[in-house]
Amino acid sequence: MSVKEKLFQLLEDKEQRMIEIRRHLHENPELSFEEKNTAQFIADFYQDKDVKVTTNVGNGYGIIVEIKGNGEGKTIGLRADFDALPIVEEADVEFKSKNEGVMHACGHDGHTAYLLTLGEALIELKDEWRGTIKLIHQHAEEVPPGGAKSIVESGILDDLDEVYGMHIFPTFDTGVIKIVSGNAMAGRSNFDLTIQGKGGHGAVPNKTRDALMAGSYFVTQVQTIVSRNMSPMDSTVVSVTAFDAPGGYNVIQDKVTLRGTTRYLEEENKEFIRERMEAMCRGIEESFDVTCTLDYVYDYPVVYNHPEEAAEVKRILEGGVGNYLTEVVDGAPGSGSEDFSYYLLKTPGTFINVGARPVGMEDPYPNHHPKFEINEDALLICAKGLGDVVLSRLEA
Amino acid sequence: MSVKEKLFQLLEDKEQRMIEIRRHLHENPELSFEEKNTAQFIADFYQDKDVKVTTNVGNGYGIIVEIKGNGEGKTIGLRADFDALPIVEEADVEFKSKNEGVMHACGHDGHTAYLLTLGEALIELKDEWRGTIKLIHQHAEEVPPGGAKSIVESGILDDLDEVYGMHIFPTFDTGVIKIVSGNAMAGRSNFDLTIQGKGGHGAVPNKTRDALMAGSYFVTQVQTIVSRNMSPMDSTVVSVTAFDAPGGYNVIQDKVTLRGTTRYLEEENKEFIRERMEAMCRGIEESFDVTCTLDYVYDYPVVYNHPEEAAEVKRILEGGVGNYLTEVVDGAPGSGSEDFSYYLLKTPGTFINVGARPVGMEDPYPNHHPKFEINEDALLICAKGLGDVVLSRLEA
Amino acid sequence: MSVKEKLFQLLEDKEQRMIEIRRHLHENPELSFEEKNTAQFIADFYQDKDVKVTTNVGNGYGIIVEIKGNGEGKTIGLRADFDALPIVEEADVEFKSKNEGVMHACGHDGHTAYLLTLGEALIELKDEWRGTIKLIHQHAEEVPPGGAKSIVESGILDDLDEVYGMHIFPTFDTGVIKIVSGNAMAGRSNFDLTIQGKGGHGAVPNKTRDALMAGSYFVTQVQTIVSRNMSPMDSTVVSVTAFDAPGGYNVIQDKVTLRGTTRYLEEENKEFIRERMEAMCRGIEESFDVTCTLDYVYDYPVVYNHPEEAAEVKRILEGGVGNYLTEVVDGAPGSGSEDFSYYLLKTPGTFINVGARPVGMEDPYPNHHPKFEINEDALLICAKGLGDVVLSRLEA
Amino acid sequence: MSVKEKLFQLLEDKEQRMIEIRRHLHENPELSFEEKNTAQFIADFYQDKDVKVTTNVGNGYGIIVEIKGNGEGKTIGLRADFDALPIVEEADVEFKSKNEGVMHACGHDGHTAYLLTLGEALIELKDEWRGTIKLIHQHAEEVPPGGAKSIVESGILDDLDEVYGMHIFPTFDTGVIKIVSGNAMAGRSNFDLTIQGKGGHGAVPNKTRDALMAGSYFVTQVQTIVSRNMSPMDSTVVSVTAFDAPGGYNVIQDKVTLRGTTRYLEEENKEFIRERMEAMCRGIEESFDVTCTLDYVYDYPVVYNHPEEAAEVKRILEGGVGNYLTEVVDGAPGSGSEDFSYYLLKTPGTFINVGARPVGMEDPYPNHHPKFEINEDALLICAKGLGDVVLSRLEA
Repeated sequence: MSVKEKLFQLLEDKEQRMIEIRRHLHENPELSFEEKNTAQFIADFYQDKDVKVTTNVGNGYGIIVEIKGNGEGKTIGLRADFDALPIVEEADVEFKSKNEGVMHACGHDGHTAYLLTLGEALIELKDEWRGTIKLIHQHAEEVPPGGAKSIVESGILDDLDEVYGMHIFPTFDTGVIKIVSGNAMAGRSNFDLTIQGKGGHGAVPNKTRDALMAGSYFVTQVQTIVSRNMSPMDSTVVSVTAFDAPGGYNVIQDKVTLRGTTRYLEEENKEFIRERMEAMCRGIEESFDVTCTLDYVYDYPVVYNHPEEAAEVKRILEGGVGNYLTEVVDGAPGSGSEDFSYYLLKTPGTFINVGARPVGMEDPYPNHHPKFEINEDALLICAKGLGDVVLSRLEA
Repeated sequence: MSVKEKLFQLLEDKEQRMIEIRRHLHENPELSFEEKNTAQFIADFYQDKDVKVTTNVGNGYGIIVEIKGNGEGKTIGLRADFDALPIVEEADVEFKSKNEGVMHACGHDGHTAYLLTLGEALIELKDEWRGTIKLIHQHAEEVPPGGAKSIVESGILDDLDEVYGMHIFPTFDTGVIKIVSGNAMAGRSNFDLTIQGKGGHGAVPNKTRDALMAGSYFVTQVQTIVSRNMSPMDSTVVSVTAFDAPGGYNVIQDKVTLRGTTRYLEEENKEFIRERMEAMCRGIEESFDVTCTLDYVYDYPVVYNHPEEAAEVKRILEGGVGNYLTEVVDGAPGSGSEDFSYYLLKTPGTFINVGARPVGMEDPYPNHHPKFEINEDALLICAKGLGDVVLSRLEA
Repeated sequence: MSVKEKLFQLLEDKEQRMIEIRRHLHENPELSFEEKNTAQFIADFYQDKDVKVTTNVGNGYGIIVEIKGNGEGKTIGLRADFDALPIVEEADVEFKSKNEGVMHACGHDGHTAYLLTLGEALIELKDEWRGTIKLIHQHAEEVPPGGAKSIVESGILDDLDEVYGMHIFPTFDTGVIKIVSGNAMAGRSNFDLTIQGKGGHGAVPNKTRDALMAGSYFVTQVQTIVSRNMSPMDSTVVSVTAFDAPGGYNVIQDKVTLRGTTRYLEEENKEFIRERMEAMCRGIEESFDVTCTLDYVYDYPVVYNHPEEAAEVKRILEGGVGNYLTEVVDGAPGSGSEDFSYYLLKTPGTFINVGARPVGMEDPYPNHHPKFEINEDALLICAKGLGDVVLSRLEA
Repeated sequence: MSVKEKLFQLLEDKEQRMIEIRRHLHENPELSFEEKNTAQFIADFYQDKDVKVTTNVGNGYGIIVEIKGNGEGKTIGLRADFDALPIVEEADVEFKSKNEGVMHACGHDGHTAYLLTLGEALIELKDEWRGTIKLIHQHAEEVPPGGAKSIVESGILDDLDEVYGMHIFPTFDTGVIKIVSGNAMAGRSNFDLTIQGKGGHGAVPNKTRDALMAGSYFVTQVQTIVSRNMSPMDSTVVSVTAFDAPGGYNVIQDKVTLRGTTRYLEEENKEFIRERMEAMCRGIEESFDVTCTLDYVYDYPVVYNHPEEAAEVKRILEGGVGNYLTEVVDGAPGSGSEDFSYYLLKTPGTFINVGARPVGMEDPYPNHHPKFEINEDALLICAKGLGDVVLSRLEA
């Protein structure tokens, strides 16, 4: 019986408890950077196990668990995030959130449950594989600046040779795994823009410099960043999402505040988009005699799946088709963002999408929806899949 | 000694008390439609005087005081408003508002003080003039629908032959009176616009219909109502004053709300401006697949000073130049609004602007400013001027 | 019989010939700056008369005719323009233009005919009035820089005390004269704007800087000059009248050219409008990374009728009501432009509007229309009216 | 010696004449749909050869040459286009265009030369391969509706099993071949938009409905089709390329004409883009009271390289690396268009991009440039490559 066969057997034995863990976490969600109890739960899990646990890693409750195998080899990181979202749960489940207004609506409870379970199994088998595995239990994926960047900067992962992670999605079939090679998830920048004009009476616009009007022209101008400045072959988004200028009928406002986000699947477009927006701020200033203050923050980078590792992962997982998987497909890139990108900026690896469509749900609720639900069978798929990947890559 | 000379003498004797009344009112301002104590103060003032006092006229605390002269003649109305504004007073005066957050920042305290005083003097002299004078102490000028419209609709002024009113302005010299013939103050309409699109993720605009973006294009379009649709010889304003769409970085909003005002010095433009805005709402709906709900309310009409009466008032007041006035000038129309317009829609008359620049204040604070102040000498000018006008017109 | 009565008698006697002159000119129109034969016709008219004729005045065929009266007095200028327009006449008249493509569609033929006739009569009566009359037969009113500016700059009118002119309009009743006091006709500036971007393939906008798109945003921005920057009480126009960017389907153009005009009834707004447009050019440059070259030319100033002279003219002409006039009314200012403004910048006076609605024509064609026609009775009204004005003012 | 080896040998022997043919065609370019002499040249080439030549196929001078091999088999089409462009040649070559103003600036001369040569060699070897080859000498690729659509509709290619074509590009290295799997070149639609307003005087915008202004707002609106309505993961372009509205300073124009192109790499977006533009036309009509007439023409569809054939072609050509090729790479899709798409709509196949960078030219002029040049070595690469493909696929 190979180590992989043993691993799969162990995981199957542990499945019930894995689901219980997931439900426990689901009932007790905590917001990003506030995951104190969740982190304690994870740390407790590894107590009395022969591993090195480092807590409070990075800018929050991050935990790194180092498992030494039998003999020299690669060091490979496996990451699961554990924070929840400020959403009032509306899903009809028995293990509904007990923390009103907070919900595991992105599946991080499942991520954590499978990684704990996989970790335990790998520990039990550690005489049978060589090299080092670092389990990365990451806090605060949902809220910039996120946890990943600070964990990377702490240096604790400097010795990684490869890094992998998984994300579950109820929006495609359980049993299906999607892998994108290259740019997989968009990079993101957020901006706040304050336009300072000069307020006054609504009947005397000539004594004012109308910031609300200037802001409106700005919104029409930024449309051209995507429509004219970016290559049609690239993938970019510029969205103005807030125009904060409430007021009465008679008063032209002194200043208005806008806010928004930009996305780019090609990291090299990041700066140019910013430059264009800055230029438009100057343009609006000149045209309408107002003052624009643009606070523009580069946020999570593009998730770049290293093509060689992506191909290997695909090859490895295809071995599971007909067994615990039904299909491994080439995924299309998406405009969402993930701070898993920070690991991949430094270390080769791949972020893997795992289907988790609930049985009988034709039009499943997407991640971040108050009625978000998953098929818990996906957890065993995650554990087996990532276990297969890490054992295979340690051998490679 | 003529009745006019007697009146002027009486008014001079009463000046000190007139100023005390004004200061009492200034210390005790009340918001529009809530002027209970102010109305009581006015009603009490006429107690035991030989006049007919009607209270609670119209949609609030309006008061009509009818003074019968000696013999048949015209019936002439004189109006002063008595409501205050939701402003925290910052003026450095001894008689500062005691009602925190409410302020007589538009001079209605002065209006009321001079009309009470003038009324009292006219009552004392009523054997010496013929006809009828109706003092119109009006509530709620500042907040639509205002008090004037309902007072007119009550029928109590149906017998007026002429109507006059005055407004004080610290923005020009005390001793100066300005009279505009014809359209004098703009008509006003207010609007609320809700644009319903379809919200979604900031990174996936194609799954949304972006209401904020649509609203911005709307703001750029409405500029053309004034710039292209209205005669350059007419005077119109379209101001979007609120764009209520706060939000986070990542969420394209479901709907946004805009608000604004339109002004027109020519009443005949009122409907066309509305039609143009309605057309643009339909245009935005078509262009961006959103739904626009425009709530458009015709508010105060244009203040139209009847040219014949305006000429007469000018001629009468010019008699006071060198005496209690320094100058009577042709005023330019303004884009502010006043519900005195409702009286003039039904009855010939004129609304008169009276200078009240405080001594030594080069750059005086305008009406509605937290530091608004007046020169109290203007009150005697108002009383004498309007007294002269009414006595002269009763004779005419 | 007063000199005025004699003048009116003479003018009546000459009416038939006056009409013949007008028809002769109508048949032989010449474009601005090319009025060689018209000028010769005028010069010939004064041959053998006891006046000083100066030809080729200013930058074209301008003619000044100086008539000395009997004794010292004021010097007063009377102006009529004589150029025609590049219009193919479509009016159904017997004396249609013989110069195909050129047409007296603005009534300058009539202006010249009445001034020649009035001049001749005043010459015949010159022993009976004192002072000096200068007839200003002006070329090139229709095309900037016009003839008036250069005539004024030539110094030949430096001794004028007052100056008057008339314009006929078929758009209001014959027998009516309109006088505007103060700002009467708009000042005008014209502009050409070249926007230089970078051309390229229509399918690859990111390799271009799209000048056509930038120009379109410019057009939407300039709407705000009138709607936001100018006082609603002032009268201004900003019109973009040309967008010269023809092309094929596949090529994003390197540059585009726009053109337009601005009008202002208040001369003091002239510079601010320009400054706003220049600012918007800079704004468009910044926003869209293009280069704007704005060629902005101040053209005819505001026609300012000096209020004292306007009042005098009105008073004088009101004397003709019931006789040769039916009504003298206060006119409203208009957004058209006239280089008569240059005379009024230097010399007090007034420009007078004279009704010339053809009999039975309910909806007459306006000036500059291919079917423009006048009621020739208006010519005698012009001659009598301006004759009355000049004789009265010489006496004043 | 295999048939492929024989073919390669024959092609090498014929290379000099192939280049002469290309130069002859280059000197004698003809515009799309006017390629009379070119077609005659091609037809003459096949005279006395044992093939079936059909001329005047489709809507122009298209020629189909059918070569029967030795025995039953597949029928495969090979296409080369032969029209030139309306460009004044500026390239410094000895065989410069003798037809001033017309130029083979897209390499169709080379395409034709290699296909004639390849065809001749295949004819000479036709006893050694089985199946049928149809050479498609296509007219009018450059000008919609193109020649391909009509050739397909003629039915003459109904029996094709597969179809292949090649295009040369000086913009990448000679010796390199690029193959795109799936959507490879954008689909294209062109539009003309007339906006009918109401003209008038530039100083009186309120009497007009300003079409130029409306057109400018339209241009700003269509930016949002790409920026908001299309998936960021898709590739689309909307370019307004002409704004035809020349004019004078004083006249607001009656109507304006715009023109432009749209591109889409996903055929399923074709209709939605049109619907959005139609909606915006209705929106502009409503907002500005103008009439929009949109003439929108679906032009060349997306070039879709069938993945299975693309993979086979890649595999086949990779066999030439180290021999006559240096590299076969996965190409990125482009936003250019080609009517080769019509063949692929009906028949599986692939369009192949062949590098032709001139020796020593670092920054080569792109296709359609007046200084466009190619490396003629690319012709032999084309002939060998396509020869290899067709022989291999006939065997498959």
